Amino acid sequence: MTTPNLDANQLKTRIEAVEAAHSALCSREVNLDFTRGKPAISQLQLAAALDGVLDGDYLTADGTDTRGYGGLDGIPEARQLGAELLGVSAENVIAQGNSSLTLMYLYIMHACHYGPGGQAPAWHAGALQAKFLCPCPGYDRHFEICEDFSLAMIPVPMTGEGPDMDRVEALIREDADIRGMWCVPKYSNPTAETYSDETVTRIAQLARKAAPGFRVLWDNAYCVHDFYDHQPLANVFELAQGFGTEDSIVMFASTSKISFAGAGVAFMAGSKATLDGFRKRLGVMSIGPDKVNQLRHVRLFKDRAGIQAHMQQHADLMRPKFEIVRQQLEAGLGNQGMGRWTDPKGGYFVSFDTLPGLASEVVQLAAEAGLKLLPAGATFPYRHDPHNSNIRLAPSYLSEPDLEQAMEIFVTCVKLASLRHAQSAA
Amino acid sequence: MTTPNLDANQLKTRIEAVEAAHSALCSREVNLDFTRGKPAISQLQLAAALDGVLDGDYLTADGTDTRGYGGLDGIPEARQLGAELLGVSAENVIAQGNSSLTLMYLYIMHACHYGPGGQAPAWHAGALQAKFLCPCPGYDRHFEICEDFSLAMIPVPMTGEGPDMDRVEALIREDADIRGMWCVPKYSNPTAETYSDETVTRIAQLARKAAPGFRVLWDNAYCVHDFYDHQPLANVFELAQGFGTEDSIVMFASTSKISFAGAGVAFMAGSKATLDGFRKRLGVMSIGPDKVNQLRHVRLFKDRAGIQAHMQQHADLMRPKFEIVRQQLEAGLGNQGMGRWTDPKGGYFVSFDTLPGLASEVVQLAAEAGLKLLPAGATFPYRHDPHNSNIRLAPSYLSEPDLEQAMEIFVTCVKLASLRHAQSAA
Repeated sequence: MTTPNLDANQLKTRIEAVEAAHSALCSREVNLDFTRGKPAISQLQLAAALDGVLDGDYLTADGTDTRGYGGLDGIPEARQLGAELLGVSAENVIAQGNSSLTLMYLYIMHACHYGPGGQAPAWHAGALQAKFLCPCPGYDRHFEICEDFSLAMIPVPMTGEGPDMDRVEALIREDADIRGMWCVPKYSNPTAETYSDETVTRIAQLARKAAPGFRVLWDNAYCVHDFYDHQPLANVFELAQGFGTEDSIVMFASTSKISFAGAGVAFMAGSKATLDGFRKRLGVMSIGPDKVNQLRHVRLFKDRAGIQAHMQQHADLMRPKFEIVRQQLEAGLGNQGMGRWTDPKGGYFVSFDTLPGLASEVVQLAAEAGLKLLPAGATFPYRHDPHNSNIRLAPSYLSEPDLEQAMEIFVTCVKLASLRHAQSAA
Repeated sequence: MTTPNLDANQLKTRIEAVEAAHSALCSREVNLDFTRGKPAISQLQLAAALDGVLDGDYLTADGTDTRGYGGLDGIPEARQLGAELLGVSAENVIAQGNSSLTLMYLYIMHACHYGPGGQAPAWHAGALQAKFLCPCPGYDRHFEICEDFSLAMIPVPMTGEGPDMDRVEALIREDADIRGMWCVPKYSNPTAETYSDETVTRIAQLARKAAPGFRVLWDNAYCVHDFYDHQPLANVFELAQGFGTEDSIVMFASTSKISFAGAGVAFMAGSKATLDGFRKRLGVMSIGPDKVNQLRHVRLFKDRAGIQAHMQQHADLMRPKFEIVRQQLEAGLGNQGMGRWTDPKGGYFVSFDTLPGLASEVVQLAAEAGLKLLPAGATFPYRHDPHNSNIRLAPSYLSEPDLEQAMEIFVTCVKLASLRHAQSAA
């Protein structure tokens, strides 16, 4: 931080100025929510034609009436769309309901109580205390699923090219109870990094070193969510097929951030053994997914090219918002040593690291000024950020004027916490 | 059976005649599916306006954009619709995705691994071998859920007014491991009986006698599925509230057989404690249900009166089909002592009991003639019908000419199996 150049009086004066700014912001009594990666209404509007797109024709290409029961795997054309998103064959994909999170939850339920497939024991079998590797900062809802199933979480740091694979491999060598790992491989939540080819290649091989039934949960939530050029990601499933480890890769995607956040189509992909095992659960709990909504999506988007054209429109709405965040962070906090942040080329988040120990204070100060942030620690297993420094910013939902205000509050709160910290450390 | 009046030669002659009829049917090479209670295309068509009904207006009455994330309980107006179907307050209902079966599965998963609520232990806790009472013949998919969760199933006979409640109460007194009971209280699957007021009142009190955490899974799948006049059903939840046992009643319904079989809205209802417990799971596995589809349903049906008017149209399509079944059974098998059957006033099924021991043979003979029936035993726990006599007929999906053919085959197969049995018993 540049504050060491200030003497105690100068520091006091500066704190008073920032406190006054903070008080002024508080008195505006705004109510801004920066917690969640929600598409803005303008983004939802891009797919407004979805309802009614069928125009009375509810039949799939093979003549199935989507309004009826059945079709556990989803309709063929929706599976094909999922296959194009995830870079696999349609036979390796099932298309389901409105939430990939639900599919992840159900897959983990299946693995915990029935076993992840093949001869591997259930993750809850006997005395086994199954553990999960959790690259972090990461997605809080992934960690909540682990917690709900009592899967012990082991944090692994991110490197800018994905998880620290030396650490991942060492942990797997040392601890045979490790049975799974979360990955958000493209524009990772919240750091926005995309896994390098080397990272993906090493992940594809992990099952060779891990206990039987080790599974990589590959949540490719942001696979087509580029703001600029298309950012390539190595094909983990193809790599795994080459290594004979394809059963270990379980992939997820959805159209939640393509069409409607709450009313899209979710996909799960994996080997035949993976899908066949999961179908046993699916066939007991369901007579089939909402095929009508799947057909709507296929009719609207047609194929990957259609989705990419659509995502260009999303990008046009997202870019200016991420620009505002970048500009305000640079203008307010650049070269001040008060934190560091990411400059995303896609996805939904900006990851901000305060000076160690200050995240919860920044969150508190922001709340006082009417800006709701995700609680400090939320991006770490058990809500525990060992450095109390990571804060996830979610710029998508707010309008541009609201976003300007939100960033003004955020920058002011980071300044105030940092300066107070410098004062108390002096 | 009237065959005792026949001497051996007459019986032989008659068998030969029926065998010839069966052969003639086989040579037609039809392919008719009588297994599942699926709405016909003509029924699905009644709600064809569903896609497009929103006309671009995706907002709920309270201004929520249904396309966005969130709203774990479902939109208020959909909860109200579910409340009217189930006869409870909207606050006691959550509206979810396209399948009430999925909600039942998830509720049982929740009860098995986390406990059904309050201080009651999880059904899978420690050495407890939790058991379920299964009135039967019943719904095969209910029994499959129990099997998937290793819940031991105890069959209970049906009486024509619901389950044999003397037996139910005796079992609960004798066995503290009993933690649950399936009920399809109106037009029960497959016997089409509606529980009497006395049965419902006794069910509402069961929790007083049962182990802590005992739950009645009240699958009111056919709550508005009358062919003629509205058939009343006592309000089990109100009764339970009177007895202080409302936590024991967990109710389900859906629009699968009102709007679209695979793309409707499912409801779960129960006490605040029941819903709060379940919300803990729901909040981990989902960011919210498909609210857009919920809004479509509310816009199309509006309220219970709208649904009832719609169900009149279903009834007009269903009545003639059930008439065909009744007429052909009476014409072909009336007063012959070859079986007995139900005469439903609503629901989706006709339940047929062959003479003891003949159901699997009838199913086999029908398959040879191109008529697919649910496997014998499917309507009993573990697919074991102790009398090998129950067969579920599902007339809804077939066209009337196909249904005529299906019934001709069925009647012929029942005759053939019965006559051969008389011959071998002589």
